[in-house]
Order: sequence, then structure tokens, then C-alpha cells
Amino acid sequence: MQERAIRTRNAILSAAAKVFEERGFQAATIAEILAAARVTKGALYFHFQSKEDLAEGVLREQDEQLVVPERPCKVQQLVDVVMLHAYRLQTDCMVRAGVRLTMDQHASGIDRSGPFLRWTDTCSHLLEKAQEQGETLPHVAPAETAGVLVGSFAGVQAMSQAISDYGDLMTRVVELLRHVLPSVVQSAVLTSVDLAETRGAKVFAEARSLRGEREAVTDTPRS
Amino acid sequence: MQERAIRTRNAILSAAAKVFEERGFQAATIAEILAAARVTKGALYFHFQSKEDLAEGVLREQDEQLVVPERPCKVQQLVDVVMLHAYRLQTDCMVRAGVRLTMDQHASGIDRSGPFLRWTDTCSHLLEKAQEQGETLPHVAPAETAGVLVGSFAGVQAMSQAISDYGDLMTRVVELLRHVLPSVVQSAVLTSVDLAETRGAKVFAEARSLRGEREAVTDTPRS
Repeated sequence: MQERAIRTRNAILSAAAKVFEERGFQAATIAEILAAARVTKGALYFHFQSKEDLAEGVLREQDEQLVVPERPCKVQQLVDVVMLHAYRLQTDCMVRAGVRLTMDQHASGIDRSGPFLRWTDTCSHLLEKAQEQGETLPHVAPAETAGVLVGSFAGVQAMSQAISDYGDLMTRVVELLRHVLPSVVQSAVLTSVDLAETRGAKVFAEARSLRGEREAVTDTPRS
Repeated sequence: MQERAIRTRNAILSAAAKVFEERGFQAATIAEILAAARVTKGALYFHFQSKEDLAEGVLREQDEQLVVPERPCKVQQLVDVVMLHAYRLQTDCMVRAGVRLTMDQHASGIDRSGPFLRWTDTCSHLLEKAQEQGETLPHVAPAETAGVLVGSFAGVQAMSQAISDYGDLMTRVVELLRHVLPSVVQSAVLTSVDLAETRGAKVFAEARSLRGEREAVTDTPRS
């Protein structure tokens, strides 16, 4: 894609995210998204065929934008994936909109299982590597543990949103990990895993600098 | 309340639950709820002042209708509370509507933190009793563990709804408990806790028979 087309696409997705977050998927209209994106109808339909298509675009953004650096300890890498996602949920309205769409039981016509399954795959893959390296306890089934992590993260973030508008998100995510990891990870590995509440911000800075020049081309400002 | 007034109130709440579940809180109207409940406007406003008030009524139903019998092992009682809630989520549309409202980020004007906090209190209380009886590990902080359980349950049910329309709910809830309990409970206690997927149905039957005659007066058919 040309740089300009990418910018237009990003502007449309950001606008869609904002409108979905404020109004909910069901109530949101293409007209509102057009007005917020300040693009022509033609430009929008060049990139997206429908409201459902826009929602799928927003859903995909949450897993495709940033990559956690490789770590020698795969449990740490898994923790970093979780913490980075929590940090982005607090700071990036596109990620927030994606998560809200995923949790929106009235968003019919879009595939809400997708993000759950993609996150489960990501975590499962890291747990398999952790297993190969002997970091996990012998009984662990990576896919099952990944499902538990993804499901429980989804609820912890929803609870944090309802109670504190994400003010206590990092505390709750760390508490979740401290309750689940001891059933999954060898204790000698546990002692060296960084579970600080500031971990998400740290990983975010790293991931952004890794993304390097690519960012200069494809990124538009967010918040 | 007179028996007839209780019946009318229950009919209104069941209708509200149905309309909220189908349409979402934002889109639902009092007129739709009136039509579904087949009661007069006067009867509805005698019991509930507004749509928000109806939503609060639905939210409260999920924690007030059934009580888990006392168990000698408080960890088992906690497990039973969780399993019973999962079972009711699969089988009772009032409970489902309450949980959906709690998770509905577009239901502005109602206190969505209430159910999270009330469930956390219930679990925290049971964990304190478990602690007094020496069933928990020494480091456990009941309120924190209760928050983790309630948050993660909320997400696991949302994931199950999105992926399988609650078909795999029991499997996922058992997996969650198997991942969290070993970090919380003495292993000698763990071996005697019943975590079977059929536990919820069993506890439901017990709780219903315990409720005994009260049910004959206040209950209307559901699901």
C-alpha cells in the first residue's frame, strides 16, 4: 500500500474505533464514522465494505500493531505480552475499542470469537516454547492454560473498567498473574520473572523502538 | 409484599431481562418491556421508576435468588458458589441478562460495578472463613483472591459466550479453578474438593430444595 493510502486507512480505523467506543457497535453508523474520519465516502468504501468490515479492522489492530521482543525466558515473554496489552488498553483508544467490541454481546454480525482465539494461539505458542525449555510444570497443557489466561484477562479488564475506569488495571493484572503462574511455572523460574506494575510501560517503549522506521511510514498519532 | 405484587414484579423483571438481553440496555425501551410483561404502565411504575431502576433490579436478581448450602469445607462452598453461578448462566435467562448488563460498557447510567463488588464480598467472606479453618495457604489475602476469582470468571464466561454460546462454559470454569486454587488452597484440602463439571447442576438442585416453600410463593417459571 502507498503511504497515503495507509494514512487514510488508519484515519478511518481511528475514527471507527472512536465511534464504536462512544456509541456501541449496534448504534454506530457509517455516516458518523465518515464525519469523524473526515474522508470521502469513496475513500472509506475503497478500504472497507461495511460496518462489520470496519469492526473487523478495529478488532485486528489490537494484535497486529506491536510485537514483544524475544526473551530467553518464555514465561517472561508471555508476561510481557499480557502486560503490554494491559498498558495499551490504558493508553490507546484503538486497543480499547477493539476490546470493547470483543466484549460487546450486542455486536451481532461480527466474529467476536476471533480475538479470543488469536490471543489464545499467541499465548499457547509461547507456553509451548516455555515447555520445551523446561520452564513449566510437568502437567501443563499449553492450549488450556492459554485459554484460562486469555479468558481471565478479558474479565479482569472488564471489572477494572467498571470499577475504576482502568485506574486499577495494572494492579489487577499483576494479581491475576500471581494467582495463575504458580500453577503453571517452575518455582525457580517464577523467582526471576519481572511482574512489576511498571512492566507494561517498559515493554511498550522497547516494542516501539524495535518497530523503528516502519513506524515513521505507517503510524498516525493516537491516544 | 403480597403474593400478587411479587408475581407482577417478577413478571416485569423477567420481561426486562429478556428485552435487555435481546436489544442491549441502550436500545431497550420501557414500551418494549411493558409489551413483553403484559402489565399496565401503572403497575410497572409502581415497582420501578425508570429503565435504570429496572436494570438494577435485573442485576440484583443474579445474587439474591439462590443460596449455596453451608459446607464444612469453605473452599468447597466457594467452588459451589462459582459452579452454581455458571450453571444458572447456562440455564436462567435472568442471570444471563444480569451478567450481560454488568459487562455492557454502553449501559451508562447504571452502576455496573455493583455486581462485581457484591460477588467479591461474597467470595472474600468465604475465603476468610476458609482461612480461619486453615484451608488456605499462609500468604493468601482473601479480598485480593476474591477479586481475581470474580474478574476472571467474568472473562471466562464472556469468552465461552463468544466462542460457543456457553456450550463450553463448565469446562472453562473448571479449568480456571484448577489454575487458581493451587495458589490459594492447602494441597491436602485440594484433593478433597469436588471440581466435577456436573457440580453446578447438583448444587442447583440442592439450593432449590433448600429454598423450599418460599419458592412456591415467589417464583415464576423462567428460562
